[in-house]
Amino acid sequence: MLTYELDRNASEALYLQLYRAMRADIERGAIKAREKLPSNRKLAQHLGVSVMTVEEAFAQLVAEGYVEARPRSGHYACEVGHRLGPTVRARAVAALEAAEGGANLGKEPSGCKPIFADFTGASAPQGLFPYDAWARTMRRVLSEESEATLMEAGAAAGSARLRASIAAHLHGSRGMEVDASQIVVGSGVQSLYGLVVQLLGRGRMFAIENPGYPRLERIYRANDVRLGLVGLDAQGPRVDQLERTGASVLHCMPSHQLPTGIVTTVGRRRDLLAWAASDDGTGHGRYLVEDDYDCEFRMAGRPVPALQSLDGQERVIYANTFTNTLGPAFRIGYLVLPPHLARDFHERLGFYRCTVGALEQLTLARFIESGQYERHVNRQRTHFRKVQEALVDQLVASSLAGRVRVNNAGAGLHFLLDVRLKGKAPQLEQQIVAETRSRGVALAPLSDYLFREPAVRLPSFVLRFASLSEGAVQPAVEALEQAMAQVLVHGGDKPAGKQPTV
Amino acid sequence: MLTYELDRNASEALYLQLYRAMRADIERGAIKAREKLPSNRKLAQHLGVSVMTVEEAFAQLVAEGYVEARPRSGHYACEVGHRLGPTVRARAVAALEAAEGGANLGKEPSGCKPIFADFTGASAPQGLFPYDAWARTMRRVLSEESEATLMEAGAAAGSARLRASIAAHLHGSRGMEVDASQIVVGSGVQSLYGLVVQLLGRGRMFAIENPGYPRLERIYRANDVRLGLVGLDAQGPRVDQLERTGASVLHCMPSHQLPTGIVTTVGRRRDLLAWAASDDGTGHGRYLVEDDYDCEFRMAGRPVPALQSLDGQERVIYANTFTNTLGPAFRIGYLVLPPHLARDFHERLGFYRCTVGALEQLTLARFIESGQYERHVNRQRTHFRKVQEALVDQLVASSLAGRVRVNNAGAGLHFLLDVRLKGKAPQLEQQIVAETRSRGVALAPLSDYLFREPAVRLPSFVLRFASLSEGAVQPAVEALEQAMAQVLVHGGDKPAGKQPTV
Repeated sequence: MLTYELDRNASEALYLQLYRAMRADIERGAIKAREKLPSNRKLAQHLGVSVMTVEEAFAQLVAEGYVEARPRSGHYACEVGHRLGPTVRARAVAALEAAEGGANLGKEPSGCKPIFADFTGASAPQGLFPYDAWARTMRRVLSEESEATLMEAGAAAGSARLRASIAAHLHGSRGMEVDASQIVVGSGVQSLYGLVVQLLGRGRMFAIENPGYPRLERIYRANDVRLGLVGLDAQGPRVDQLERTGASVLHCMPSHQLPTGIVTTVGRRRDLLAWAASDDGTGHGRYLVEDDYDCEFRMAGRPVPALQSLDGQERVIYANTFTNTLGPAFRIGYLVLPPHLARDFHERLGFYRCTVGALEQLTLARFIESGQYERHVNRQRTHFRKVQEALVDQLVASSLAGRVRVNNAGAGLHFLLDVRLKGKAPQLEQQIVAETRSRGVALAPLSDYLFREPAVRLPSFVLRFASLSEGAVQPAVEALEQAMAQVLVHGGDKPAGKQPTV
Repeated sequence: MLTYELDRNASEALYLQLYRAMRADIERGAIKAREKLPSNRKLAQHLGVSVMTVEEAFAQLVAEGYVEARPRSGHYACEVGHRLGPTVRARAVAALEAAEGGANLGKEPSGCKPIFADFTGASAPQGLFPYDAWARTMRRVLSEESEATLMEAGAAAGSARLRASIAAHLHGSRGMEVDASQIVVGSGVQSLYGLVVQLLGRGRMFAIENPGYPRLERIYRANDVRLGLVGLDAQGPRVDQLERTGASVLHCMPSHQLPTGIVTTVGRRRDLLAWAASDDGTGHGRYLVEDDYDCEFRMAGRPVPALQSLDGQERVIYANTFTNTLGPAFRIGYLVLPPHLARDFHERLGFYRCTVGALEQLTLARFIESGQYERHVNRQRTHFRKVQEALVDQLVASSLAGRVRVNNAGAGLHFLLDVRLKGKAPQLEQQIVAETRSRGVALAPLSDYLFREPAVRLPSFVLRFASLSEGAVQPAVEALEQAMAQVLVHGGDKPAGKQPTV
């Protein structure tokens, strides 16, 4: 039986200590791949901890792809080398997978309503930003900072103080070991991706995920790089497709892929790093751009380690933004460059001035240092979790339950909603979008995120719920029910009695 | 005799009315090129206005290249077509051109001092920014603006309100007729030049001025466009050289070129516009990027009309920044696109988000609307004028008078200081830089701004005086005197008794 010394007096929770210890054993092979692990109850008894502690540790190991949960069988260690990785599903999905129910849809005239629920990501969360605290902090910057400090913030990489704050924040929230000298601050990730192209060279081919974020494709195209497309399976971006593109840079979203919601497993992360570390014959090296989208809003357990943390070969350019947490009034993002690229940046692109004003940079630095930023994100996460739980619960309890399936919920601010209907997916999606829109709900179909349509797929929608208020959940689900009923009358097949196996 | 109806009750000053009327007559040919104009006294008598009114009107016409002042002869109308333009010199220069004096330089040991006078442009003006007023305005934005407004500011071109404020500001301060829909806001001009490349196409050749702004060259190179160099004569960028480069875009600084201080004459402006409007055979058209550097700090008369105002063919992309007036804590610039490019921008690059945060944009909008921005710039201009006058006066009164010449002062925050010394200019410049630096004065030699060295030139320095305090003027000039004496002992020739004819 596995034996670990857990410290009840440590500041770290017992489940985290257990999680770390087991993870280390899996990584170094002390627990072998595919080995069956003890049951929750037995392990708890053996270690003298509560069953809940063991459950939480396993949940985290499962979420990160170190352990696989087989229904009615128990937990098994995963292969975390390069060949095989387990399927990762957030726990919220599991509860839904058994859900089934008959269609019992009412009829409604399709009158036109103003949009009260926007799932497209086009509008921002309302009323969450602590403007008063921000204004107070900014006032302090204005009265206390020397003009020399304000001036220094104009350096290409940004304010030294903000970069130090970000490094500390990444350590605390993400477990990343980063030196401030690796950080480059910029006005949102779009400008920073332009810098990445300038840094790595415009002659390269970049690969992006398909389906993926349309703005990303446009940014790279506007920067005149050749683009390859890489599909995803349940573990993350497919390395075989990546090899075939001939690209030397992959831009990926391992924490929470937009739109699929897939969390790249630890095994696949290692595969990607192995790809990046291998010689492509050009002598210029391969890179991963790790777009750490949504890492702040993982709702179950701790976040999966960043590619950046696992990278021993200086192959990962980490990118993140404060715009998603601070809101659209702010445009601040940053890169974490591997040390050799950080040197390169300062040598070749150090002539640039930082694209974020000093006032904003120094306000954000203090906002992070004082803990206000973390508290703000925690409040947001609590709010978003409530909204998501209400949304998923109501979908499951609704007449849609046998007709739709929630995919990859729990890892961030969106999930995929597949709809079991026969017919051409893009056309069905357009019908449903039109019907929901006339009922005040804006939906984005998966086709909006597909750069290339696969031969066969179900109609699917990307539900970005960040701007949804709790009060809008029920009417939004009702509107979806009515819209679907309307589409069923005029097109599509009859609702099936069982869950689709997508 | 010229007859104009001037309105004493109009809000516009009499000299401006007279200036406009004469300018219109010169432009439409009613006053012929090379025609002698009446004397100040006679014209004043004829129109029933003061001699000072006529003098001011002529000064403005001279500054803008519509009229030439010939010593002891009077004023003559200029050719403002494409063939010939008059030399424009700011009036401050004229006072200096007669200045002469013998060298009377003391000796000093070359000990090392901290920099108290930085003429390189590397440091910012101190203590001029109205932080309290800015903070109050920002507070108001935070408490009064809806989140919808904050969201809207994220659109690619920026906040509609800020763009309307900028359009009104350009009308009031610069006489430009611009629609808000032509304006694109961005985090400083460097990001905006990247957008210009994306908009016009990376396959083009861009031309920049030589000597010119080194950061500009690096920005275009980092954006992977081919670059041509265009020299300047006293009237502005040389169109013959521009034609030879094969470039289809010229980036120029007509208001006040950095580093030469040359103000492009109206005649040359028309030549440039004619070049841009002519067919280059590619079908893609030619463009001028008008970098309206320093237009806020013209110290004599009103600013020369922007290329953008003179452009009837949609060939000018106007660019300006608020960073030079608001200081390095802020990073906000904008483009004014010709209408067809504005449409193109929204179609092809409208997916971008504005690179300036909404909070900053809306604060600036209110700061402009309330008149605080204009008052701030006026205060700055008054301060900078005092510093420049003190600096030029002390240089003229110093032992350097026979040795140096001030070129193109009065049009903005720098001027060129030529030094009459025989020898290789770059080496002499390095000696003088080292000697002044050891005395606490940072100087940038012209060679820092030259992309290609001409065969023969005098040693010269770009004196950017924006960060100089009034109190530092005298010790700075003394340090220059001492440094020059040191260089004369160890290198260079003897001071000449007469002014060099650069």
